[in-house]
Order: sequence, then C-alpha cells, then structure tokens
Amino acid sequence: QHVPFTVVRYPEMEMVNRSKEFFELLNQRRSVRFISNEPVPREVINNIIRAAGTSPSGAHTEPWTFVVVEDPETKHKIREIIEEEEEINYHKRMGEKWVNDLRKLRTNWVKEYLDTAPFLILIFKQVYGLHSDNRKKTHYYNEISVSIACGILLAAIQNVGLVTVTTTPLNCGPRLRVLLERPVNEKLLMLLPVGYPSKDATVPDLKRKPLEDIMVVV
Amino acid sequence: QHVPFTVVRYPEMEMVNRSKEFFELLNQRRSVRFISNEPVPREVINNIIRAAGTSPSGAHTEPWTFVVVEDPETKHKIREIIEEEEEINYHKRMGEKWVNDLRKLRTNWVKEYLDTAPFLILIFKQVYGLHSDNRKKTHYYNEISVSIACGILLAAIQNVGLVTVTTTPLNCGPRLRVLLERPVNEKLLMLLPVGYPSKDATVPDLKRKPLEDIMVVV
Ligand SMILES: Cc1cc2nc3c(=O)[nH]c(=O)nc-3n(C[C@H](O)[C@H](O)[C@H](O)COP(=O)(O)O)c2cc1C
Ligand SMILES: Cc1cc2nc3c(=O)[nH]c(=O)nc-3n(C[C@H](O)[C@H](O)[C@H](O)COP(=O)(O)O)c2cc1C
Repeated sequence: QHVPFTVVRYPEMEMVNRSKEFFELLNQRRSVRFISNEPVPREVINNIIRAAGTSPSGAHTEPWTFVVVEDPETKHKIREIIEEEEEINYHKRMGEKWVNDLRKLRTNWVKEYLDTAPFLILIFKQVYGLHSDNRKKTHYYNEISVSIACGILLAAIQNVGLVTVTTTPLNCGPRLRVLLERPVNEKLLMLLPVGYPSKDATVPDLKRKPLEDIMVVV
Repeated sequence: QHVPFTVVRYPEMEMVNRSKEFFELLNQRRSVRFISNEPVPREVINNIIRAAGTSPSGAHTEPWTFVVVEDPETKHKIREIIEEEEEINYHKRMGEKWVNDLRKLRTNWVKEYLDTAPFLILIFKQVYGLHSDNRKKTHYYNEISVSIACGILLAAIQNVGLVTVTTTPLNCGPRLRVLLERPVNEKLLMLLPVGYPSKDATVPDLKRKPLEDIMVVV
C-alpha cells in the first residue's frame, strides 16, 4: 500500500545555508583515539541509534543490531580480545606494508579508549534474517546497508558534540560475537567508542581532498 | 604529526535536544521514486558532496568519486542502460523470490526519475589507488568507507529538504563507468537521483523497527 509523501520545503537561500552549515559541522569531525571517562547521558545514545535506524536498507530488511556496552567489565574483556588479536595482526598478519600505511595515524594495538569511553557501540550486520517459521530470509546488500547506517550514526555523534573513531577490529568478530551472546547470523562490522575527547587528545594532522578532487560534473 | 583536538561542547540538555531533533529530521526521510524536474541550486549539490567527503575512510584513502550528472542527454543514456539491464534482471536474473520481495515496494524496471531528477549522483568506489609512480595503492575497506560516505550524503540531502532513492543498479556498473569515462579502478557503488518530490509522489507505507528491536544494552 502506498501513501502520499511530502517534505518540508525551504526557500533557496535557506537551503544553501543549511547545506553549508551541515558541511561545516561535519568537517570538524575527526577520528579521536583518546576518549575521556566522563559520563554521557544514555538518552543521547538512544537517540543517535534511533537516527541510525532511519537508514535505508536493501528491500527494507533493516539488517542491523547496535550493541551498546556500558558495563566496565565487559568493556575490559572487549579490550583484551581486541588487543590480543591486534598484536598478532601487527606482528604477523598485516605485513610491513600495512603497518607502514598506518604509521602516520599512530594507531597500534594498545587501545585504552576501550576502557575509558563511557559507551562502546558494536555494530553487527545480520547476514541473513529468519522468518517466523525459521526459514532464512535474504538480506540483500546487508553490508552496504549497515555501513550507510553507520555513516548516519557518525553524523549523529558529531551533531551532539561527542567523538568516536571508526574501527573494524580485524579477526575479532567471532570472539566478540560470542562474548556479547549474539546469534550466528550476526557478524561484527564496526566498533565505535563514544564519549568526550580527553583533555590532551590529539589527532593526526591530515588534510581532506578539496571538492574538485572528489566531484566530477557531467 | 599530531595536533591538539577540541570539540564544541554542549550542555547536557542541549545535547539531548540536538540528538532528538536530528533523529526527527532523519526519521522523515523516505526513499522517493517520483522526482520533479524543478531545478535545484548547484551550490547545494556542491555542499552535500563536500559533506560526504568528510567521511572517515580506511587509512585515510578517501576512495570515492562523486559524478554529478545534470546534462539531460547523459541522464537519458543512463536511463536507457539501467532500464535495459533491469528488465533482464527482473525477467531472467533475479528469480521469482527476489521479484516477490520487491513487489511491496512497487519498484520495477521503468525509472522515469532518471530523466526528471535535476541531478543524478553516481558514487564510485576506487577499489585501488595509484601512487605518483603508477604503483597500485591499497584501499583498505573501500566499499565500507564509500558506503559510510553515502550515509552522510543521504543525511545531507534530507537536511536541505530534497529527496532521493538509494539505488544499486545491478549489472550496470561497467557500462555506466564507460559512459561516464571513469578509470578502471573505479566501480559503481550507488546511484542517487536528487531533487524535489513530484507533486503526486507516494511512498510504500512501511514502518521502521522500534529502538528495542535494533539496540541491545550490556
Ligand atoms: C544498499 C541499498 C540498495 C537499494 N537498492 C534499491 C534499488 O535498486 N531500487 C530501489 O527502488 N530502491 C533501492 N533501495 C531502497 C530501499 O528499498 C529502501 O531504503 C527501503 O525499502 C526502506 O525504505 P525507506 O528508504 O523509505 O526507509 C536500496 C537501499 C539500499 C540501502
Ligand atoms: C572502514 C574504516 C575502518 C577503519 N578502521 C580503523 C581502525 O581499525 N583503527 C583506527 O584507529 N582507525 C580506523 N579507521 C579510521 C581512519 O583511520 C580515519 O577515518 C582516517 O584516518 C581519516 O581520519 P578522520 O576520520 O579523522 O577524518 C577506519 C575508518 C574506516 C572508514
């Protein structure tokens, strides 16, 4: 069944201003790897996840689960799993080339933010769903859909003045899935620690490509 | 080289309000398949693409190209390619099950919006990059990174009161890449027609999952 659709319509000047302000807000976003332990209101976390849940998804399958970890012991167990696997990644799995590519970002396998951030959000993609009679339901484009939802989540985090770093904990998915008691159709896609930046937070001095390097007009 | 980092800090009440308002704005987003031919300011398109370009990316590779098509003839050629391939998809490649899953969305292979929308944005992922001496540069997690950028783009479109529909034109990538003269390291990920909804636009009467179905707290 289809229903009529309308949107709020802004005058052109206001549209241009809104587009500029939104860009300027998001352009201040940086991946922050130093997060303070100051508390953040749970209601804010609920609302940013609600925002992510408005994402489009292939055939409206909504193939995402957002696991919010606030329990300090569970956060610490997550840290142990990730640091253990990452140390192996750095020394054995990644190869010199990858380690070099990451050097300028100064990321390594010690991830204190996994303990200090008041919330860790682990985003799982549901690689298939289940009908009520237990038959498998195909989730078209589930990884792309969940990644889009994460893009919206990142914008929502920035919009409230909090920080995060987008991480893809390599080879940790299965152990984290078991730790968090998620079903077998869910696979870890991303982990976002969320909080305020710590007082002495620094970020790599990176530049972004200008518009003419990312846009082509035909 | 690392530099100090700070963010705007909002009082808690304002954070909660901002998170709520952002959710409410995005919750009005719908995939709209009826787009009017009214012009949209190019500056708005530039700014929403600037916003998408603030996305994080694996090892800061920024592996995206946004091709903005405003030329009516090129739009029509795109439509021809997509409708041709989609008709084959519907009749031969997809199978009855997929066609059924899509029926409730009333999508089919006729896509008038490809002619009427003032802008088509085709988003290409750069599956690898090139160093200045022509050696290949690995683009870690390029599809996830570009999908995150598309999530930000969708939020930026919604924020200015325009509409789109997220589409992944199946099997059209190679022909569209050639038509738009993109290099071989770029692969089509998504196509977004952007404009105002047409006056008689309708959308499927879908509901979204409530928070308790997408969030788990530990
Ligand atoms: C990765 C992805 C691919 C999609 N592909 C198509 C498509 O090819 N054609 C289409 O009409 N809609 C497509 N959609 C839109 C979905 O059908 C739509 O998001 C879903 O039905 C939910 O509706 P909403 O976006 O209005 O909330 C796609 C969405 C995503 C996220
Ligand atoms: C898909 C993806 C995976 C990433 N994985 C990691 C990671 O595992 N660890 C990390 O410290 N940063 C990770 N990043 C963050 C990038 O290094 C960062 O976005 C990039 O350097 C640009 O910096 P900016 O986000 O401050 O603009 C990832 C980013 C993306 C998009």
